[in-house]
Amino acid sequence: MINVRLNDEKTAVVNLDQTLLPGEIKYSELKELDELYEAIFSLRVRGAPAIGIFAAYALYVLAQKIKPDSFESFQKQVLTLSARLDSSRPTAVNLSTQLRRMERLVSSMQDSPVPEILDAMHREAELIQQEDIQMCRAISEHGLSLLKPGMGVMTHCNAGPLATSHYGTALGPILLAQERGFSPKAFCCETRPLLQGARLTSFELYNAGVDVTLICDNMASIIMSEGKIGAIFVGCDRVARNGDTANKVGTSGLAILAKHYGIPFYVCCPSSTIDSACPSGEHIEIELRNPGEIKEMFFESPVAPEGVKCYNPAFDVTCSSLITGIITERGICTAPYNESLNIFTKR
Amino acid sequence: MINVRLNDEKTAVVNLDQTLLPGEIKYSELKELDELYEAIFSLRVRGAPAIGIFAAYALYVLAQKIKPDSFESFQKQVLTLSARLDSSRPTAVNLSTQLRRMERLVSSMQDSPVPEILDAMHREAELIQQEDIQMCRAISEHGLSLLKPGMGVMTHCNAGPLATSHYGTALGPILLAQERGFSPKAFCCETRPLLQGARLTSFELYNAGVDVTLICDNMASIIMSEGKIGAIFVGCDRVARNGDTANKVGTSGLAILAKHYGIPFYVCCPSSTIDSACPSGEHIEIELRNPGEIKEMFFESPVAPEGVKCYNPAFDVTCSSLITGIITERGICTAPYNESLNIFTKR
Repeated sequence: MINVRLNDEKTAVVNLDQTLLPGEIKYSELKELDELYEAIFSLRVRGAPAIGIFAAYALYVLAQKIKPDSFESFQKQVLTLSARLDSSRPTAVNLSTQLRRMERLVSSMQDSPVPEILDAMHREAELIQQEDIQMCRAISEHGLSLLKPGMGVMTHCNAGPLATSHYGTALGPILLAQERGFSPKAFCCETRPLLQGARLTSFELYNAGVDVTLICDNMASIIMSEGKIGAIFVGCDRVARNGDTANKVGTSGLAILAKHYGIPFYVCCPSSTIDSACPSGEHIEIELRNPGEIKEMFFESPVAPEGVKCYNPAFDVTCSSLITGIITERGICTAPYNESLNIFTKR
Repeated sequence: MINVRLNDEKTAVVNLDQTLLPGEIKYSELKELDELYEAIFSLRVRGAPAIGIFAAYALYVLAQKIKPDSFESFQKQVLTLSARLDSSRPTAVNLSTQLRRMERLVSSMQDSPVPEILDAMHREAELIQQEDIQMCRAISEHGLSLLKPGMGVMTHCNAGPLATSHYGTALGPILLAQERGFSPKAFCCETRPLLQGARLTSFELYNAGVDVTLICDNMASIIMSEGKIGAIFVGCDRVARNGDTANKVGTSGLAILAKHYGIPFYVCCPSSTIDSACPSGEHIEIELRNPGEIKEMFFESPVAPEGVKCYNPAFDVTCSSLITGIITERGICTAPYNESLNIFTKR
């Protein structure tokens, strides 16, 4: 299942609409800036790596429609489009990273005709996706080295194939363990309010034949206390230089519980998620979302009175002191993270 | 709002159906054993004290329909009805406690005619409710002594007036603080899967004019990390002799987070909830409920594939070492709980 790709004419991004899963499998063709922006904003595409790939393809699709009278005019319009896409979600670093990469490519080709630049943008976006596939594979192999046969593994939100290209990051070790006959026992936290764990992660693991159990987020403590969990794997959206990690809201709570119960807690991410410009978690902006996601979305009728306020942060920051290891495609970083992450992000 | 009472003819229990809140305010008249059992089983009445009051009224209503040929036959049928009601939910101690109290009353009246016994049962059930009102008031006063004006207070599930008779246990200090102009800032965890925090607690606090914010359960960690919470108050369903406490699933996780962030964590309950026959949390049976509550209930369509398993414990046990104090109508118990609870349960 390739959830983000170009259509055959290369004039639209084809995206599996993740807001409709698991009830409906629908691929949308998106061509216009507003609908491409909306797809990211409304989580029709989600997961930091998938957003990065989507944005690169989106910028290529939009750049084809520019009617430039000069390189400067072309570049200026590309930058405007890129800035708009980049503003769709604030927390994931991959969105910015991949858009900057596409912008740099354009900047480097000022002596080339626009059709050649467009061809190069197309190849670059495909390369971003290919690199992601290889990166997920490498993370999965590193993560697998930490699993024992039959082990219970907990995960939160969705960092599987839907969030990336193939295997995923946090789901990669579990999917690879299943392929190799390790019979992992996966426990997915449903991940309120948007239920990515129920709708996406349990869907992916179940379809891959994994023994998967869905729980509500607040059941993590009792399950850990019962000795059912040997390790926790989560993805992440941004890693600060000191190892503090932003991921789906609820992650920091799981890490605190894991420490309490003596369960190893691993963060899985491509090294591109490490933001060396960000010194610590305090500097990571946390996206606040709409109260309707908590009170109304998915429900038959509102679950709280209209006047009740909601606080709906989409992410939280897990302190690096709670993280047993950060698994990247280059290997597993451990504390002190200021040193280990520094080595892993050098190119 | 009296949510559990007899009808005017005293032939039925009138119950505010909590499964329909906040969308619909519906009082049902329940007369038959099956519908009285079902009301407890399906959480149409819920909250340990409210269940105890409901069960006492229910036993009285059912006892009126017995056509006895002797005291022994009457008593035998009362015990059979009581046992059936008692089997509706396993974790809350109040259900058993209040049914035993009604049974003892019957046993003590073997020389009285049945109409007199029925009158006494009626008075006893009303007394149980009156005692609950006084008990809630006393817990609220003790709890209030721990609050400062404007303090952020987090709570989980529903331990408010709906779960009791008036004020509630864990909500009592917040409601009393509001009455006295303390302007508390309440944060309700929505409490998946049955959303008692959203549907009931936010409803009760909002209607009382409290500044209330609803959050998803997995947002507790970030909110505590932001310094918004000065204290956590929860109710409970059973307290073991050593202070281990069973309450709605998710409570133990909140207690671990509270300890991590240095926030005091209080359990509010009538001293009747202290089960001195139970040495520790390991001996408390945890009710496992239906997967449909996680995947289907309240939702427009199922949120996970049909084949995905769910684990749905209704309660978890909070280790006494995580509890700052247990607030009863007799005062606030602190560690070592083996000693303090022993004093508080002496009659």
